[in-house]
Amino acid sequence: MRWWFIAGVIGILLILLGLTMVMPLLVSFYYQDQAQDVFIRSLGITMAAGLILTVLSKKRGGDDYINQKEGMTTVALAWTAISLFGALPFYFSVEFSNIGDAFFESVSGFTTTGSSVMTDIEASAPSLLFWRSFIQWLGGMGIIVLSIAILPFLGVGGIQLYKAEVPSPVPDKLTPRLSDSAKILWIVYAVLTLLEIIFLLGGGMSLFEAACHAFTTMPTGGFSTKNLSIAQYDSAFFDFTLIFFMILAGINFTLHFQLLRGKPLIFWQDTECRFFLLFTLAMTLLVTWDIHGSVYQTFSEAFRFASFQVVTILTTTGFATADYEKFPGLSQMILFLCMFIGASAGSTGGGMKCSRVIVCGKYVYRELFKIIHPRSVSQVKINNMVISNDVLRSIMAFLALYMGIFILSSLLLGIMGLDMMTAFGATAACIGNIGPGFGSVGPTENFAHLPASAKWLLSFCMLLGRLELYTMIILVVPEFWKK
Amino acid sequence: MRWWFIAGVIGILLILLGLTMVMPLLVSFYYQDQAQDVFIRSLGITMAAGLILTVLSKKRGGDDYINQKEGMTTVALAWTAISLFGALPFYFSVEFSNIGDAFFESVSGFTTTGSSVMTDIEASAPSLLFWRSFIQWLGGMGIIVLSIAILPFLGVGGIQLYKAEVPSPVPDKLTPRLSDSAKILWIVYAVLTLLEIIFLLGGGMSLFEAACHAFTTMPTGGFSTKNLSIAQYDSAFFDFTLIFFMILAGINFTLHFQLLRGKPLIFWQDTECRFFLLFTLAMTLLVTWDIHGSVYQTFSEAFRFASFQVVTILTTTGFATADYEKFPGLSQMILFLCMFIGASAGSTGGGMKCSRVIVCGKYVYRELFKIIHPRSVSQVKINNMVISNDVLRSIMAFLALYMGIFILSSLLLGIMGLDMMTAFGATAACIGNIGPGFGSVGPTENFAHLPASAKWLLSFCMLLGRLELYTMIILVVPEFWKK
Repeated sequence: MRWWFIAGVIGILLILLGLTMVMPLLVSFYYQDQAQDVFIRSLGITMAAGLILTVLSKKRGGDDYINQKEGMTTVALAWTAISLFGALPFYFSVEFSNIGDAFFESVSGFTTTGSSVMTDIEASAPSLLFWRSFIQWLGGMGIIVLSIAILPFLGVGGIQLYKAEVPSPVPDKLTPRLSDSAKILWIVYAVLTLLEIIFLLGGGMSLFEAACHAFTTMPTGGFSTKNLSIAQYDSAFFDFTLIFFMILAGINFTLHFQLLRGKPLIFWQDTECRFFLLFTLAMTLLVTWDIHGSVYQTFSEAFRFASFQVVTILTTTGFATADYEKFPGLSQMILFLCMFIGASAGSTGGGMKCSRVIVCGKYVYRELFKIIHPRSVSQVKINNMVISNDVLRSIMAFLALYMGIFILSSLLLGIMGLDMMTAFGATAACIGNIGPGFGSVGPTENFAHLPASAKWLLSFCMLLGRLELYTMIILVVPEFWKK
Repeated sequence: MRWWFIAGVIGILLILLGLTMVMPLLVSFYYQDQAQDVFIRSLGITMAAGLILTVLSKKRGGDDYINQKEGMTTVALAWTAISLFGALPFYFSVEFSNIGDAFFESVSGFTTTGSSVMTDIEASAPSLLFWRSFIQWLGGMGIIVLSIAILPFLGVGGIQLYKAEVPSPVPDKLTPRLSDSAKILWIVYAVLTLLEIIFLLGGGMSLFEAACHAFTTMPTGGFSTKNLSIAQYDSAFFDFTLIFFMILAGINFTLHFQLLRGKPLIFWQDTECRFFLLFTLAMTLLVTWDIHGSVYQTFSEAFRFASFQVVTILTTTGFATADYEKFPGLSQMILFLCMFIGASAGSTGGGMKCSRVIVCGKYVYRELFKIIHPRSVSQVKINNMVISNDVLRSIMAFLALYMGIFILSSLLLGIMGLDMMTAFGATAACIGNIGPGFGSVGPTENFAHLPASAKWLLSFCMLLGRLELYTMIILVVPEFWKK
């Protein structure tokens, strides 16, 4: 392991992170919210740390080739380091009292989770709220590059599945370098964010609110600038605008690009996207049926709140417009289930990902088929491509590992004194990078009251989920460190 | 599909079932509980149906060879038919008012689940309670022959894993016919039941109670003759006696035979059994720690109730000595987890089975290992035997199918109006053949208040779980019925 090489990469990222802190600093000057000092200190420390790492690393030299082990270590440590230095503005602000809380909020931002330990959001400095939203937007950019350019080449968790599909959004003739692909997708991401800002402005939000909410929609983050989240606005226009953009954020970004390149039916032709859209519709209708009459009196109200909750959880965004813990059992179960399924691979969403769930279903059906026709050779296909046994094995192991980590983390939260629903809900919400959970961390509550140990554990879960489990978990397998 | 052949097999089983109804009839005469009529009518109908099927089937002739499809259909239909005719005494008795309830209680008996719709057990006729316990004992015999002699040859759900280990309890030189193996294991089963009766008599139970409880311990059934289940006795002696026999019932029965054949360390040498015992111990200690101080004041009390609840759930028996829904979150989560894991393969217990969970864990570890050493060839072993890729695939698909059915059934229960914890708990308890669940079907409640549709669904779940999913689920796959 060439530690100095990894340190160099992290150093560059920290310098970039430091530069982005100029944004909230400007916001702070504009609003005169007494938080300039917070961002100047954070910026200074982050830049200094970045420069030191870069300089020390440069001295040692070395080539640019990076092997798989180093790649995984770099990804895991980089995301952790960025979350740590990104926590500085929280730590220095008056709203936070300890490093555990600040780190939790920062990890929740960069992993685009959206779980919060802030109890009075509206009383906070605008610049801090801006930073909170902005780091989710930066996290979303990180995920795009991670899912199309890095993880497929590290062979992580069946994400190889997309190797053939994803890295070439520009069709056939050209095979652009990966950084070009990333740039194209970043442009899509930025344009969608801009469009959403315009929509929200049109609906009557201030520029500050519109930007903050758009910054947390496209990465399926879910931080809001309001204590009651989107419920504060009680506006059907905002609800459906956000639903629209959350759905777009939950779709593989390469499909957006293909749509623009002249494939109008691509959302329907792509197996995963079709499943994602149909599943969203089916669950919305079920929840609408369930809450119509029991919670909401009119069908249109029931549909509006059902679609919002289903989309916000399934895309792993985590905005709230209703307390789904007061919904009947069926709706709660559907939302709990959605927490695990998550959005599409190649999107900014978390969870297990629709494609893995589809593959798992086909895997089980193939087994039933094999019992009926023992001598048959049947293959699992997605988008008419045969999925290799290696990838199948990797996907099934990923799903098992996901459930294993879910169980282990829930039990550890139990040892820390949490009740069953809170432990299950908090873990599911954090591994899935969603935001709100169940029990005492539901959509109208926050994570502030949890013991410090639980916050550290859940911070780790958020990183695990965001980095597709393997990248992070591999670092704690002793075998990894053997010479 | 040679339907007449299948009908013939079911006919013979129904005649045998009719014969066993003589036992509760004798009990009824002894106690003069006015239920003789119930059993005479049930016996008559069952025998008549069995004879008609046998005679009609004989006429059609045919050979004895049975193919895989016919084998699975026979197993699924036989278990359903026996549950249906075994429900007659319930249906005819004054305690039951409709066929749905009677069928539920009967299925719960024959599948050794132990979920009940009877609200006042102690007010029932002794002969009916005897029948209720006795069908669990018969169900246990069915499971033994199923798991060692039938399912492995149908290639169901990775149970092939045990093909090499199980069908030859008589070592090496002899390879007895399967029916001989079954007979040997039935003797082990009967002797253990007898031993338990003697222990319970020694502790002061009446012969009736001792027999009824032994009849429901060894098959990990869990029906009791008391409204409060084992809590009624409040006796540490009975608790630990039952714990001892529940653990024995949760161990692969071929290991008991090997122990008697002079392998004193076999429980420790066998991977699955070692895991089962260590896991039981670990969970008992965790629950003891959790409920000590919060629910029970002394360590010995905490240990007694912790070990009983862990063992009763993990072995999928379902006796109750405490309301675990009043335990702290950690203990509840552990018990909920135990519902899924279940006992050993080749035991009378249900759930996913320890061996499948072990294989799943090793499967995931192999995947992590492969990421670290991409060019390595590593195999999953259990008891030093390499598990083939076919079996691995089958086991992973089984676990995924188990979770899929759990989710689907819970959602359907939600549609029927059940709340989330009740839906999750009832499904887990019924697929796992446990008995009590969570929510409104906890250890101090019963299943009587559920809507009729829920009872039918849960009856189906019990059969699904008992027949290792595939045997039953395959019948609803359209592909199965294609020519």
